This record gives sequence, structure tokens and C-alpha cells, in this order.
Amino acid sequence: MTDRGVLGIVGAGQLARMTHQAAISLAVELRFLADRAHDPAAAVAPGTRLGSAMSGDDLRAFAQECDVVTFDHEVVDLETLDQMEAMGVTLRPSARTLRMVADKLSMRRALDSAGLPVPPIEVIETGADLDRASERFGAMAVKRTRGGYDGRGVFLVTTRRQATAEAGPHLDAGETLIAEPLLSLDRELAVLVARRPGGQMVVYDPVETLQVDGQCRQITMPAPVPGEIARHAQQLARTAAEAVEAVGILAVELFEVDGKLLVNELAARPHNSGHHTIEAAVTSQFENHVRAVLDLPLGSPQPSCAAAVTVNVIGRDGETDPRLRLEQALATDPGAHIHLYGKTPRHNRKLGHVTVCNDQAGEAQRRAREVAAALGSLEVTG
Amino acid sequence: MTDRGVLGIVGAGQLARMTHQAAISLAVELRFLADRAHDPAAAVAPGTRLGSAMSGDDLRAFAQECDVVTFDHEVVDLETLDQMEAMGVTLRPSARTLRMVADKLSMRRALDSAGLPVPPIEVIETGADLDRASERFGAMAVKRTRGGYDGRGVFLVTTRRQATAEAGPHLDAGETLIAEPLLSLDRELAVLVARRPGGQMVVYDPVETLQVDGQCRQITMPAPVPGEIARHAQQLARTAAEAVEAVGILAVELFEVDGKLLVNELAARPHNSGHHTIEAAVTSQFENHVRAVLDLPLGSPQPSCAAAVTVNVIGRDGETDPRLRLEQALATDPGAHIHLYGKTPRHNRKLGHVTVCNDQAGEAQRRAREVAAALGSLEVTG
Repeated sequence: MTDRGVLGIVGAGQLARMTHQAAISLAVELRFLADRAHDPAAAVAPGTRLGSAMSGDDLRAFAQECDVVTFDHEVVDLETLDQMEAMGVTLRPSARTLRMVADKLSMRRALDSAGLPVPPIEVIETGADLDRASERFGAMAVKRTRGGYDGRGVFLVTTRRQATAEAGPHLDAGETLIAEPLLSLDRELAVLVARRPGGQMVVYDPVETLQVDGQCRQITMPAPVPGEIARHAQQLARTAAEAVEAVGILAVELFEVDGKLLVNELAARPHNSGHHTIEAAVTSQFENHVRAVLDLPLGSPQPSCAAAVTVNVIGRDGETDPRLRLEQALATDPGAHIHLYGKTPRHNRKLGHVTVCNDQAGEAQRRAREVAAALGSLEVTG
Repeated sequence: MTDRGVLGIVGAGQLARMTHQAAISLAVELRFLADRAHDPAAAVAPGTRLGSAMSGDDLRAFAQECDVVTFDHEVVDLETLDQMEAMGVTLRPSARTLRMVADKLSMRRALDSAGLPVPPIEVIETGADLDRASERFGAMAVKRTRGGYDGRGVFLVTTRRQATAEAGPHLDAGETLIAEPLLSLDRELAVLVARRPGGQMVVYDPVETLQVDGQCRQITMPAPVPGEIARHAQQLARTAAEAVEAVGILAVELFEVDGKLLVNELAARPHNSGHHTIEAAVTSQFENHVRAVLDLPLGSPQPSCAAAVTVNVIGRDGETDPRLRLEQALATDPGAHIHLYGKTPRHNRKLGHVTVCNDQAGEAQRRAREVAAALGSLEVTG
């Protein structure tokens, strides 16, 4: 019993699982809406309700058990969320924020309206739009506006024929797509912001993320960029958080192109690019998400070590289970932090991560990769 | 599902609760034998069996659900544990270790046999024994040999009449007591060891503990002692772990008297004197307990910051609930780590702890005490 009541999380994946670990320390009572009883968070916590985030009935029933509702993914029925808010349910972030962030087109428009630098896009609704984009950009990424993550729903095309093959079925189904040029990136960065309902924010130091086929594979703190780029990235993240009225963690993914920053993507929840904060920041993203959505004072986002690298443990196939390789992985490096999500192995699936803190990022990277390899992960670089 | 199976913990207090937080990262499945459904660990984990650690039936039924059984307290029916081991149940630590450690007299004898320096004692079974002890020691501590912790079952007496008043009822009931002199301590230290079944060990750096009425109130890392004292304390802890054939965490409490170390007490489980290891060591005592009892490679016990102080949040009364003061405590210091155990407040009860890492132990202490006070704790010094 606390005066904060019950915090409900829609979804019970690894983000919810790690949020549970953090919430225990604050004696905050969590409840999960999970698709399956063995989902990562549902397997380690009491008080899970089975149901779908796409079902209005399930969402409403879940909300009745909670005082505040938050999310570990974006695949939620937005119309139901609007109704729930109208009925007085406290959603953090709000349905309005989720609507802006869950749809790539509205997200880009929100960023654009806030004066934030974004990659150029073309909106694709017809074959003629595809022609125009293809002509303007040449090689390009064509993206579904909803439901894509870890590179899903993103098609990299170099010819008009490829573009038609990939995009055609979605256009035929009446979807709106967006196209953007394949930029030549110096690197990708991410900045996490934790923001309370009243607007109070803390901003984490930027990290470099290494993406393979749109999937985050590695996080390096600090990002190897000059101080002015780091500060600019943090300023863009603050502006983005205000633009979408974020509450909780907002992850802001950026492209660095020719030394200039572009805001690429937002996620209104704890995010893979912040897993290093469990060991390498004073307050983890998970604890600050809980604090922010409950409107509690935020914790320090400062680094707690000189450098840290997090390497994701990615399923190689359906057979190689990191849980069965734990002993050899632990023996590989007594200083590494292993996090396993308890998920059934599948090719390309995020099954866990490994973080190493060190004085030198290069040494942290070498060690974290070695432990991830001992766990049977796909190589970082694909 | 892992090849390690299910780890059962007898007891579901705060030690089990923090062990659960650590076990989640390794995807180790825990189960608890809890007295009550709202016990600290039971409230945050699935798979709790309600039952008593003093009931043979409950222990046996619990063990059938587990592959390895460990403990978060010592108040366990030892005869049942002997039988369970004889039937093939894997207990870590073993019944033999628990028997040595749970009884203060057998513990002192085991330490003595191993050549470890211990405070002088008198064994008290009769009034005549009490006379002899009183004459030898003058002011002394008379201790029950079983079941005491946090200063319970320890009577500080300065006169023979007091001794009779406190000890008489226990002697009349046929108990064996021990008496020891009230030593003039320079300080109290504690060293944690994690030990695997095959004998592999890691040893944490010594900490200074501040005890009030036998209850731990504060932990300071590093202990403010010369390097040779620190190394000697670690060596004594290693020897003690071997002497009692510890598996899992063994906490070794020491007295420093005139610059010399005496081994005062052992606990064969994660221990209050190691709570700082959650943030201030590479591997926490809770993770290393899980690793050790599952016979997995141990993690580094090295400090992860220059200094850290942990202050216990002690119930002031039955009214002041730290959960209701969380907001003001979080606002007090954005860099403090608050851990609440979800327990009903009672006078003198451990309800949580606060850890602050800092370059200077003095500053860490000031800050940790301030946050504990904001949570409504009793003052550190009573």
C-alpha cells in the first residue's frame, strides 16, 4: 500500500520486466497487461492480467485495476485510449502523445512543427507518389507509418521496381507510407529524457547506437562526439519531449550527418538505447520512468562510471538459448552484467543484453561482445 | 526454463525480495516459502508457497517444487533439514553449515577449532556458571544461543542481580546461554564471502558497521582501517567460510579491539552488512548468492565507486510509513538509492535502506542519513 496506488503497464516484455526490478526498490505496486503468462514481465511478477493491448475490453478492464496506466510498447488501440482518458483514466504518456509518436508521419510532423531538424520525407499514398520519391531520393527507405520497430516495416530500396514490389501491397491496402533518402550517416545517437507531467525533465548523456538492419545491437556511453554535439543532442531531445508533451521516458534517436544532427525517431517508453543506465547511470531509465509517470521527483541521470558498452544478445536461431549458456558466459568475465529476458529463442529476437563498465569504452566493448558471444548471440555486426 | 531448475528460498523477507531482483537478470526462477502472502518477497514475485520454516511438512512440500533450496533466515527446523538432505534434497548452505551457524555456541566452537580469534566466552547452564562468568567478566553480554538477531536474545548486564533476572527464566527452561565480556571496541567490521560448493570464493572489501542495541544501522565502505587490517579481516573471513563449509554468501562480523580483530558472528545468507553492494560493487551480494548456491561462476566483488554509505530505514513507530514519505525523500537527494521493503511499520523494524555513493564517505553518510530521515527513520544513533 502506498499513496501512489497501482501502476499498470500495458505490455509485459523485457522493458516491463526491468521496470518491475526497479519498481520493487520503491515499493511501487505494478500490474501488467500481458498477452501470455510466460511473457518476460509476467513470469517474474504477481498480478498479471492476460489480455490484448488491441482489445478495448481488455484495456478497459485492466485500467479499472490501476491508478495510472503506462506502456511498454506502442501497439495499442488508440481509439480506446482516447475513450479511456475521456472517462477519467490517467494515461502516462497521454493518448495524444502516443498518437503523435506511434505514427511515423504524425511524429515527423510534430518534430517539424517544433522546428526540429528531421530527414526529408515524401508521403506515399499512390504509385505516382512513389515515382516522385524515387526520382527525388534514388536509394531510399520506405517505411510503414505504424507498428514497425527493430527494422520491421522498413524497406530499403534502390530501384523503382523494388519500391513497387515492397510498397505496392501496402498501398493497395490503403496504407500511407513515408519515404526518406538513405543518408550517409557519421553515426547514430540516442538521448533519453525523463519528463514529469508538470514538465520537469532530466536528460541523460547521449550514447552512440549501432544499428544493423534497423535493430539496435550496441550502445556506447559516452557517445564519441565533441561536447558541443552532445549538448546540442540533449537540447534537441528536450525540445522533442516538450513538442510531444512526453511523460515518462522519451527516447530520441538522432542521425549525425556531416557533423549535423537530425531527429529520426521517438519512442515514448523505456528504450533499448538506455539499458546501460541500469549500471552506468545514478538512476536507471526504468526507475526514472516509474518516478516520472507517478509524478515523483526524478533521479539523477548522471553517469556512474567513465564508460560503458551494452551489447544486445540477439537470437541466432530457435535453438541457441542463452539461458543454457549462462555458466560459460559468467565464467567469461566476472565483471560483466548479464541480463536475460526469459524469452523463447528465435532468429533476430532480443533475448538479453550484456553491459560492461570500464575506464575505456574500447575495452568495455571488447568484453561485452565476448560475453554476448558466449551467450550464443548473433555477432554485433550481423 | 533453464538447466539450473528452480531455486527455492525458505523465507520471503527483504533479503529474499532483493535476491529476486537480482535473479530476474539471470533468468533464474525463484520460489519462496513465505509465512504470509504480503511478506516482502511474496508481494513482488509469483510462485510463493505459504508455510512455516519450522514445519517439517511445509519444508518437505516446498522442497519438492525446487531443485536447490536456500534460506533468507536461520529460524528453520534443523532436524527436518537433516532428513531432507538424507532424502536427496540439495540444501545450500547445507544443514551442517546451518547447524554450526544458527547456534551461537557451536558457531564459536567451530571458529575456535579453526584457530580463529574469538571473544572469550563462558557457557552458562546453571546459576553457578552465571556466578563464574559474572566474576570473570564483570559487565557482560548474556546471549541466547538460538534465534537472536538484531540484538534480540542478547542481555547486557552489569550486576549479578541483573544477570539472574535476565538469564534465570531461560536457564529454568533448560536453555544453554553464553556470556562474554563487554569489550571496548574500536569499531565493528563485516566482510562478505561468496563461496561455491567446490570451495571457489570471492571476498568483498571490509565495511564498518554501526550497531545500536545490536541492530545494524549504518554501513560504510571502505572501512576506515589500514590496508593490513582490511586484508587480515578478509583472510579471517576466508578461513571462517572454509571452517563452516559455507555455500552462498557468508557474512562475517568482526570486532576490532585495540587494533586486533576478533570474529564475533556469522550469518550464512545475504546480510544487512552487504546492502551497499547493490550499487557500490560490481556484483551485488544477492547476485553472488544466487550464483554460488547454483554453483555458477562468481562475479567480481570489487567496489564500483570510491565510497558508499548505507543507512537503514528503521521504524520509528507503527504510524510512520516510509512509503508515504517517498515523494519528499526522493526530492531530498536525486542521487540517493532508496530501497523500501514493503513492510508494515513497527518500532525498531527494518523497513528499507538508503545508499549513497560518493568520492568521500563523509559526504555519502551525510546524504544517506538525510534521506533516511526524510523517510521517517529512527536516527542512526538511536
